Amino acid sequence: MKLQRVCVVGAGAIGSLFAGHLGTVVETTVLTRRQEHAAALNREGLRVSGKSSLHPKVLASTNPADLGDCDLVIIATKAAAVEASAGSLQGYFPGAHILMVQNGLGCEEIIKKYGDWPIVSGVTFMSGTRHSDTHVEYELDTATWIGPWAGSTANFEAAREIEALLNRSGLKAEAYEDLLPHQWSKLIFNSAINSIAAITGLPHISAFARQDNLEDLGHLVFDMMNEAREVARARGVTLADDPWEMNVRAVSQGTTGGDDYAHVPSMLDDVRNKRLTEIDWITGAIVREARKAGIPAPYHETLYRLVKAYETSWSLQPACRQETASGE
Amino acid sequence: MKLQRVCVVGAGAIGSLFAGHLGTVVETTVLTRRQEHAAALNREGLRVSGKSSLHPKVLASTNPADLGDCDLVIIATKAAAVEASAGSLQGYFPGAHILMVQNGLGCEEIIKKYGDWPIVSGVTFMSGTRHSDTHVEYELDTATWIGPWAGSTANFEAAREIEALLNRSGLKAEAYEDLLPHQWSKLIFNSAINSIAAITGLPHISAFARQDNLEDLGHLVFDMMNEAREVARARGVTLADDPWEMNVRAVSQGTTGGDDYAHVPSMLDDVRNKRLTEIDWITGAIVREARKAGIPAPYHETLYRLVKAYETSWSLQPACRQETASGE
Repeated sequence: MKLQRVCVVGAGAIGSLFAGHLGTVVETTVLTRRQEHAAALNREGLRVSGKSSLHPKVLASTNPADLGDCDLVIIATKAAAVEASAGSLQGYFPGAHILMVQNGLGCEEIIKKYGDWPIVSGVTFMSGTRHSDTHVEYELDTATWIGPWAGSTANFEAAREIEALLNRSGLKAEAYEDLLPHQWSKLIFNSAINSIAAITGLPHISAFARQDNLEDLGHLVFDMMNEAREVARARGVTLADDPWEMNVRAVSQGTTGGDDYAHVPSMLDDVRNKRLTEIDWITGAIVREARKAGIPAPYHETLYRLVKAYETSWSLQPACRQETASGE
Repeated sequence: MKLQRVCVVGAGAIGSLFAGHLGTVVETTVLTRRQEHAAALNREGLRVSGKSSLHPKVLASTNPADLGDCDLVIIATKAAAVEASAGSLQGYFPGAHILMVQNGLGCEEIIKKYGDWPIVSGVTFMSGTRHSDTHVEYELDTATWIGPWAGSTANFEAAREIEALLNRSGLKAEAYEDLLPHQWSKLIFNSAINSIAAITGLPHISAFARQDNLEDLGHLVFDMMNEAREVARARGVTLADDPWEMNVRAVSQGTTGGDDYAHVPSMLDDVRNKRLTEIDWITGAIVREARKAGIPAPYHETLYRLVKAYETSWSLQPACRQETASGE
């Protein structure tokens, strides 16, 4: 397997970070949704600031036919857009591997319906802010974990080669023969933190780990993570990292920077902008896995249904703001 | 017991409905929080439109010393304001009965700390819209249920006399020797409907009874009400009405008028106006009762903690709205 040409599908913050780094070491193309986005990238290149200072040229288009062949396709769209991306890739890039980096579970199955590419799963913890169509700021330079997806013909060797390429480009990657223990650790962490952040409006602050009083949110996070741990166990997955400890670490020291510079989980960012969240692929995935295992999941069912209901509230007519009171 | 003079404490929508009706049949005073509210009532009287057309004179003040003696005090503030109201009443109205009409459980104990008045508990389903300090529209003319509170010296006879007075004034009241089966039915209904409405932004629409798909909100409402039914049973209370049937009735036909004119539960109105909700007295009350009974209440604990956390989000600094994405 040679990795000399990479196509990044989707140039949001995560996709731009991949393309902006890879563009400095291999021939890199970008498949965008908007024509003007592709035009801007072709004209200006893709600038990365923050943790990296890079400015590679990239070839961009809304049509894969314009992009030539490639050895690796990185699907960097949100989970909800994977179906559309996969459809547009059908018949293209026959010799390529595919790397998925969506949150949650289930996106690999969608890709598989559209082609028999070998698929490598990924879990990314890096983050960035997209300042424009051609400028992304690299913020958290944490690793992307990758591993062969068992439902495809990809093998560990391919994951190792992708790992080497990403590291060479200035990103951080770690390949695992079995990604599931890592994927599930992050899934469980995200399921609680993202859904609770989205529904309460709170960024990931110390309240998520507080357990002093009956009303404290830390109790809910703890109980919800425990519930998911049971689901993982029932599905035969041993976690690589303890989600509750990830939560405590994140709010107390490093990765989210404490309450003054609190991290905004992606689902909170989504609801603030009234975009549909990835709840179906994250908390919803755990609800479905619990059903398969035949074990109860009241916390996950509750957060899943609340976030889904919250999303439907945006389409209701703006309600009357008069002071109304009633016994109800 | 004679009921010739009534003092209504708190003139929000519910308090105004009581004072506006009672003012037509007995001498009625109003204790307000704001000076200009009292002044407006003294100047203009209190107008009731909608289901009733009334316009009695009332005597209003922010100081109970200005209001003379009375036979019945109706505490019509929100639960969160009961402590302050009770404090201001200490030493006044020694011969009066007190009628409480707060949502939830636990307000009687607060009053008891400030005086040995006989206390009658109430549960009100009526609703209105307060158009100004001196004008309230009477909307849902459903009954207020009342009954003697066992923690005081009030008896059923007193509740019957208050029932007769309220009915004579044009309101609807029903007295019960044991209010608990009625109070708990409404508590359980409100605990689910109000907390879910507050956290999702949805008024009480048909989605609250839908149970077709895994994500449907009706499952959550059903499970939550079942959980509370177990708490009631464990505390020795037999429900007067089935909360799930109340929910289905409300969204399918009458009292909330369907999705086109959906009822806005009071906690949803509170959060829309960034006012603290009554969650501690409603969903929080069931959480505490479950602990006393030693039975699990994951649904109530979850909604309780989410609404409390949501309330705290209002005091955070408005967060950055830039497009940020990350693996979290």
